[in-house]
Amino acid sequence: MSDQKLWGGRFSQGTDKLVEKFTESVSYDQKLYRQDIAGSSAHAKMLAKVGIISKEEGQILVDGLQKVLAEIESGKFVWKQELEDVHMNIEQRLTELVGDVGKKLHTARSRNDQVALDFRLYVSERLAAWCELARGLAGVLLEQAKDNHQLILPGYTHLQAGQPVSLAQHLLAYAWMLKRDVERMDDAQKRVRVSPLGAAALAGTTHPIEPAFVAQELGLPAIFDNSMDAVSDRDFAAESMFIASLSMAHLSRLCEDIIIWANSSFGFISLSDGFSTGSSIMPQKKNPDVAELVRGRTGRVYGALVGLLATIKGLPMTYNRDLQEDKEAFFMVDEIYSASLEVMAGMMATARFNGERMRAALSKGYANATELADYLAAKGVPFREAHHITGSIVAVAEGRGIGIEDLPLADLQAVSAQIEADVYEVLKYEAAVKRRCSSGSTGPASIEAQCKKFGAWLGE
Amino acid sequence: MSDQKLWGGRFSQGTDKLVEKFTESVSYDQKLYRQDIAGSSAHAKMLAKVGIISKEEGQILVDGLQKVLAEIESGKFVWKQELEDVHMNIEQRLTELVGDVGKKLHTARSRNDQVALDFRLYVSERLAAWCELARGLAGVLLEQAKDNHQLILPGYTHLQAGQPVSLAQHLLAYAWMLKRDVERMDDAQKRVRVSPLGAAALAGTTHPIEPAFVAQELGLPAIFDNSMDAVSDRDFAAESMFIASLSMAHLSRLCEDIIIWANSSFGFISLSDGFSTGSSIMPQKKNPDVAELVRGRTGRVYGALVGLLATIKGLPMTYNRDLQEDKEAFFMVDEIYSASLEVMAGMMATARFNGERMRAALSKGYANATELADYLAAKGVPFREAHHITGSIVAVAEGRGIGIEDLPLADLQAVSAQIEADVYEVLKYEAAVKRRCSSGSTGPASIEAQCKKFGAWLGE
Amino acid sequence: MSDQKLWGGRFSQGTDKLVEKFTESVSYDQKLYRQDIAGSSAHAKMLAKVGIISKEEGQILVDGLQKVLAEIESGKFVWKQELEDVHMNIEQRLTELVGDVGKKLHTARSRNDQVALDFRLYVSERLAAWCELARGLAGVLLEQAKDNHQLILPGYTHLQAGQPVSLAQHLLAYAWMLKRDVERMDDAQKRVRVSPLGAAALAGTTHPIEPAFVAQELGLPAIFDNSMDAVSDRDFAAESMFIASLSMAHLSRLCEDIIIWANSSFGFISLSDGFSTGSSIMPQKKNPDVAELVRGRTGRVYGALVGLLATIKGLPMTYNRDLQEDKEAFFMVDEIYSASLEVMAGMMATARFNGERMRAALSKGYANATELADYLAAKGVPFREAHHITGSIVAVAEGRGIGIEDLPLADLQAVSAQIEADVYEVLKYEAAVKRRCSSGSTGPASIEAQCKKFGAWLGE
Amino acid sequence: MSDQKLWGGRFSQGTDKLVEKFTESVSYDQKLYRQDIAGSSAHAKMLAKVGIISKEEGQILVDGLQKVLAEIESGKFVWKQELEDVHMNIEQRLTELVGDVGKKLHTARSRNDQVALDFRLYVSERLAAWCELARGLAGVLLEQAKDNHQLILPGYTHLQAGQPVSLAQHLLAYAWMLKRDVERMDDAQKRVRVSPLGAAALAGTTHPIEPAFVAQELGLPAIFDNSMDAVSDRDFAAESMFIASLSMAHLSRLCEDIIIWANSSFGFISLSDGFSTGSSIMPQKKNPDVAELVRGRTGRVYGALVGLLATIKGLPMTYNRDLQEDKEAFFMVDEIYSASLEVMAGMMATARFNGERMRAALSKGYANATELADYLAAKGVPFREAHHITGSIVAVAEGRGIGIEDLPLADLQAVSAQIEADVYEVLKYEAAVKRRCSSGSTGPASIEAQCKKFGAWLGE
Repeated sequence: MSDQKLWGGRFSQGTDKLVEKFTESVSYDQKLYRQDIAGSSAHAKMLAKVGIISKEEGQILVDGLQKVLAEIESGKFVWKQELEDVHMNIEQRLTELVGDVGKKLHTARSRNDQVALDFRLYVSERLAAWCELARGLAGVLLEQAKDNHQLILPGYTHLQAGQPVSLAQHLLAYAWMLKRDVERMDDAQKRVRVSPLGAAALAGTTHPIEPAFVAQELGLPAIFDNSMDAVSDRDFAAESMFIASLSMAHLSRLCEDIIIWANSSFGFISLSDGFSTGSSIMPQKKNPDVAELVRGRTGRVYGALVGLLATIKGLPMTYNRDLQEDKEAFFMVDEIYSASLEVMAGMMATARFNGERMRAALSKGYANATELADYLAAKGVPFREAHHITGSIVAVAEGRGIGIEDLPLADLQAVSAQIEADVYEVLKYEAAVKRRCSSGSTGPASIEAQCKKFGAWLGE
Repeated sequence: MSDQKLWGGRFSQGTDKLVEKFTESVSYDQKLYRQDIAGSSAHAKMLAKVGIISKEEGQILVDGLQKVLAEIESGKFVWKQELEDVHMNIEQRLTELVGDVGKKLHTARSRNDQVALDFRLYVSERLAAWCELARGLAGVLLEQAKDNHQLILPGYTHLQAGQPVSLAQHLLAYAWMLKRDVERMDDAQKRVRVSPLGAAALAGTTHPIEPAFVAQELGLPAIFDNSMDAVSDRDFAAESMFIASLSMAHLSRLCEDIIIWANSSFGFISLSDGFSTGSSIMPQKKNPDVAELVRGRTGRVYGALVGLLATIKGLPMTYNRDLQEDKEAFFMVDEIYSASLEVMAGMMATARFNGERMRAALSKGYANATELADYLAAKGVPFREAHHITGSIVAVAEGRGIGIEDLPLADLQAVSAQIEADVYEVLKYEAAVKRRCSSGSTGPASIEAQCKKFGAWLGE
Repeated sequence: MSDQKLWGGRFSQGTDKLVEKFTESVSYDQKLYRQDIAGSSAHAKMLAKVGIISKEEGQILVDGLQKVLAEIESGKFVWKQELEDVHMNIEQRLTELVGDVGKKLHTARSRNDQVALDFRLYVSERLAAWCELARGLAGVLLEQAKDNHQLILPGYTHLQAGQPVSLAQHLLAYAWMLKRDVERMDDAQKRVRVSPLGAAALAGTTHPIEPAFVAQELGLPAIFDNSMDAVSDRDFAAESMFIASLSMAHLSRLCEDIIIWANSSFGFISLSDGFSTGSSIMPQKKNPDVAELVRGRTGRVYGALVGLLATIKGLPMTYNRDLQEDKEAFFMVDEIYSASLEVMAGMMATARFNGERMRAALSKGYANATELADYLAAKGVPFREAHHITGSIVAVAEGRGIGIEDLPLADLQAVSAQIEADVYEVLKYEAAVKRRCSSGSTGPASIEAQCKKFGAWLGE
Repeated sequence: MSDQKLWGGRFSQGTDKLVEKFTESVSYDQKLYRQDIAGSSAHAKMLAKVGIISKEEGQILVDGLQKVLAEIESGKFVWKQELEDVHMNIEQRLTELVGDVGKKLHTARSRNDQVALDFRLYVSERLAAWCELARGLAGVLLEQAKDNHQLILPGYTHLQAGQPVSLAQHLLAYAWMLKRDVERMDDAQKRVRVSPLGAAALAGTTHPIEPAFVAQELGLPAIFDNSMDAVSDRDFAAESMFIASLSMAHLSRLCEDIIIWANSSFGFISLSDGFSTGSSIMPQKKNPDVAELVRGRTGRVYGALVGLLATIKGLPMTYNRDLQEDKEAFFMVDEIYSASLEVMAGMMATARFNGERMRAALSKGYANATELADYLAAKGVPFREAHHITGSIVAVAEGRGIGIEDLPLADLQAVSAQIEADVYEVLKYEAAVKRRCSSGSTGPASIEAQCKKFGAWLGE
């Protein structure tokens, strides 16, 4: 076994079986095979370009790598744990296919810069995929906002009914969060799409390489500035995992709303059968499992982020094997986050909203109390007094189990003589929403403006 | 597909394929198959005992479950994602094997209490396994302490040489940490080994069940007090993951020591070839990858803990699907922690220590400076002045690149006339260690006492 | 300034002002003054007992320390940042008060073992205080459970109404969680209440000290086994912070329930004015701020735990200054957790519950659907079919916006001819709760047994 | 007391004292006083501009706010806990100073948008301050790199000597990390510098306000898009805390290097007395406390980040009191991170490097082994064989305790006849560094280019 290891020479004893299993990464880093082959092809072309290998050798390597790619994608490739990682597995197979020239591929590079390159390419692709998925979910929210713009529900603070808002405003709030998430992804790409190839083990190389050519071949706009930084930098993974964490926080908040709305005391939302599950015992159950799992998995994504931060803390220069732990964590985050965006788009697209139950909640929550206070204030009652009067009226309505708007005028006037019949128009929830005319508010003009602006961003 | 789901009845539409994949757990919770079958067997016996099913039916179920077990262990069992989890997969196969009586197994229980039971049994077994592995590593440390009790190295604070200590003291420090870890595991078992079966979905059941009988069958000393708590409690998972986290912190500290010691400027330790790796480029490298990976994976274990804590935060009563996220996290922690203990035992057992390099570090670190100050103090010099004098002598030795003990008497006396020829005996590192006579100190008597006490705890 | 530092001798240059501020801890570790003085007094007595100092000197030190204590408690003591920490501040003041004998106090100890002792004493006291506060809150929950044992509400899984449960069962679930928390605290004390004094800087001491005597004086049942472990062990802080984290998780869950129940669509609970806040704009608001803050602060407690774990990860032996970060984190956890327990006891004790709204939610949530299915099953309908029938009936009731129990018999029979007039008795929520007769269930017998057992644990 | 609360009207009972203490934030959010006053002034001007108040009233408010500011900055202002927060304290004092017109200031806004504005302004200022501090430290690293460009030390991977690198390359690696940190701060400002004022409680307002005017007055380039998002968004705090976390990770790595280098077995660095501390017992100690504290506090910064993420997870729309927990966490992060940058700049600027000890480590670490292998490969020896030969030579040198370059030619030739006298030139560490000619490598040309590019970025 030690013979197969490139570094086995000085070692009199083979690697302990336990150690081989403990240290291998090929069981999960084989996910990087496309990036590894792309990186190796670009490297081979560069080696040929600068004359380190001949043009013919360069072509043999590039062709050989394509064969390896085909073997992997057709499922014929045999991954070997004793070859440790994706890089060694591919390189050894390449050498089997093309002969000794295969060994020249690794000239002027090291696994240290190679793995950094592969992982950067992978993360960059996933960030781009996340953008699309996030925009997809945002698009669904925009559609539902448009389709249900007439629905009004209580806007909550402290989960207490505050003021009436349109469902559109509520859903668009999440769309804007997703837009920020996408912007963060775009910003991160500037730091992800940097080629580290050419840093070699840690110090650069004595060969006349052209790192910029490799970057160009791979479509990366920049190359590393410092070889020691290049091989030990995992900022790009941490930053991406943070972006996913914050976006999962947003999703978890939407899920919490959905879960509460799906409860029968609320009843604001009805999830489609395809996006719910039932109970084998309780026949009435229709559980929002998808929303619960997204909320629950938010914790795991956080854990992956904090785990990576803990791992890189206090590591001395340069590459340390601890850094191997970046990949499984990122893969888990990617799997959870991508699937969450996708499944939530389906869940939200197929959900139906129940305006009647929202209306009942408005009434039960006295969501028009502010309107009444404002009405009194407009009549010249000092706001503080208006606030007091309204509080008293709420108490009366609460005592009778009805909404403010259900109280007869006489009862309202018994509390404040300033109240007149025109109050009922003011107390209407639709009217309350319409009166919100300010920029970014829940009012119709703002909603329309938001939909337009957001749609433009989505490229609609 | 919806037909296969026990709760499918009320649903007009099947589960979305995306949702099925998103919500399934059988891909990882199949690890619980032994526990699930043990729990189901105990449940079946109880149902028969109290007369809910007949004795014959009970026997059929128990026998059928054994057949399922055999199928799984022989690799013949076909796990189906559309059956969601380990419980449904086993139950459906049981029913195929024994007919309709199989459906009676689920009487008076729910997946909510079933999964809690299975997971508790699993965690309990792993805690017991961790104990053995931790004791195994501690035993290796004890052996190395005994074998190398004569070696002396600098005891560091702030990674600055402080006072000479025996290698035994250093290694035993870690052994005592592991003992605390094991004690925490023992304490946790009191809270893990509690049977939740009989809590049913959340409210208990109308059937005349005997939860205590089930617990007894499974060797669990206690049963749940409150059904709502029983189905939503994941304390036992969090506590176990914390214990692993803290123990990983201990391992990470030992690994840091190993990594520093293996550096050529230290050279205190030589890892065996079987527990090191090399470099394909740099022929002189012998890397302590195992130690680095244990240190790095500590971050991931922390992440799993904080992830679970974040997941359970703010969950309303009782069971929520978020709780499904407990298992993958625990499995990862278990895999990392168990393997770390095992591989570190091998690494430590095969490591060799280099007393000469330790000696050189003592000299270079002026680790006998305290001895000199104490010597002066014993001669009546106020300690503060003794501290000053010693500081000056260290400066002289530092200037010449030698140890204090290498300075000629004349030079010592040039700084303080109180110093006499007997100082050289005092400056000997062995003598310094021997003088430490206090309980728990690095002195020989303490080391012997520690080895005895620790060995007794290990049952040697 | 450098003159005031005990270690200033070898240093030609004083500490940079920035560094003094950056490294000082007295601004927060002065909280440990009582523990520091208690530890120093015990140490002085021991020094006198073994003859390192005279009996008279011992008495002078003990008396002097009492004077310092009095100064601190009367607010006259002047804390000085340039003296770094609580230990140096107290020792210097002692020496001012009693003269040069004050300097003898530090014989045979170091700040390394001194701070470990002080902090252990502090943590131990807080653990004991937490126990009392947790029992206090549990006692309130027990009282409310007893006082409201007749109230019935939906037991939720997935926040979907599942089966009817008594409010007592719901509240007791939290009481049992708190009991587990207290048990963890008791277990932790075994590892907290260990005296590290005598470990000195890291290696023990050459003086004939008696660590066991010091421990006895302080009421600590055990002493350290290994000096290197003793000065670098912060397990006790991490374990305590974990226990607080898990208990905060429990509190956060209760808070989530409270917040949801206080929403007007639920209306299950009414918090007292003294434990709520209002809105300056929205007169109807009565916000459960206390519950929200406890839930929110749970995050901060988690953060403190993971921060400490990250801090200790990978630290080489023995004491490193990083460990200074243990105290502020623990103090924050203690402040949040203690206050949360106390304020929640007040909030829960003064809350009122609304049985009518609970009843409405039962009906709206079809929480008696399981009863109907069981009823049919008891009549010989296969459970799966019973489940289907019930699902259909729920759909009918849902369509009319009423509960199952509100459907006329004819309508029920239209779906299943097996249903007879006796079904209405079965559908009663009280009856459903009463039928739960199993151990730990929501049934009256179980509630009574739980109250008794829990009360006994509380010592009532 | 309840009279002083703006919302007290509906409440028959005052706030419990415990609750007042539990919920208050003025003890820490008073830090926001400048931002609060700036925001209120801009709001007052806007109210006057659009005619909600008169120009005179607007001027009275602005002038009054300046008086409050002066009182606070002169230390005369009395902060009252019963007034809850910075906003209420300032508003009440304003009303005392200017009379009833003071109450008009709060028209068309709510504490929800007010606190979001204040906090955004604060975070934005701190991000700008962080940039300067980070650039300051980077500048120090650049200077040290230039001043010590001739020093060569082992470049480590796995903390094993790999290849020789210049100290400049090592220090510049950290400078480039800091540049990335600054870029992240700049990116974040786009999302921080968005004015939420005008979102009011959550729904916008009925008043004809001009949010864009307020933003312009405050120098903020953008305003909120959605009122519900505006009052509940804390992304900007989380993102800033992540940026600080990742930068602390970088600092912690540099600290680890410093701590190891300061150990006497390495001896690469000598910290100035002003940035070190000593030991009261061990006279030879010179501890790198600053580096240890920065490394240790990295954990606490991580904790603050994960705490905030946990806090916002699963919060329903919109503002919830949980969000109050954002500020103390951010303040702690800011305090630690700012001070760490500043104190590390001082520590690094005053540190001296020891080239001789670096040279000894190169030799002891066989850091020129790769050079020998390359030398052999250049002579036509297959690399694999060259690797083996070099390994054997390393073993010989190791046996004698000397460097490869110290072996006589005959001994080298005994292993491989291909080795000739010209090998000694190749084995020189300076030559090895010089041979690294590739872009971003450790070679002199790369160092010069890096210094130039980095200096340009710093604006030198």
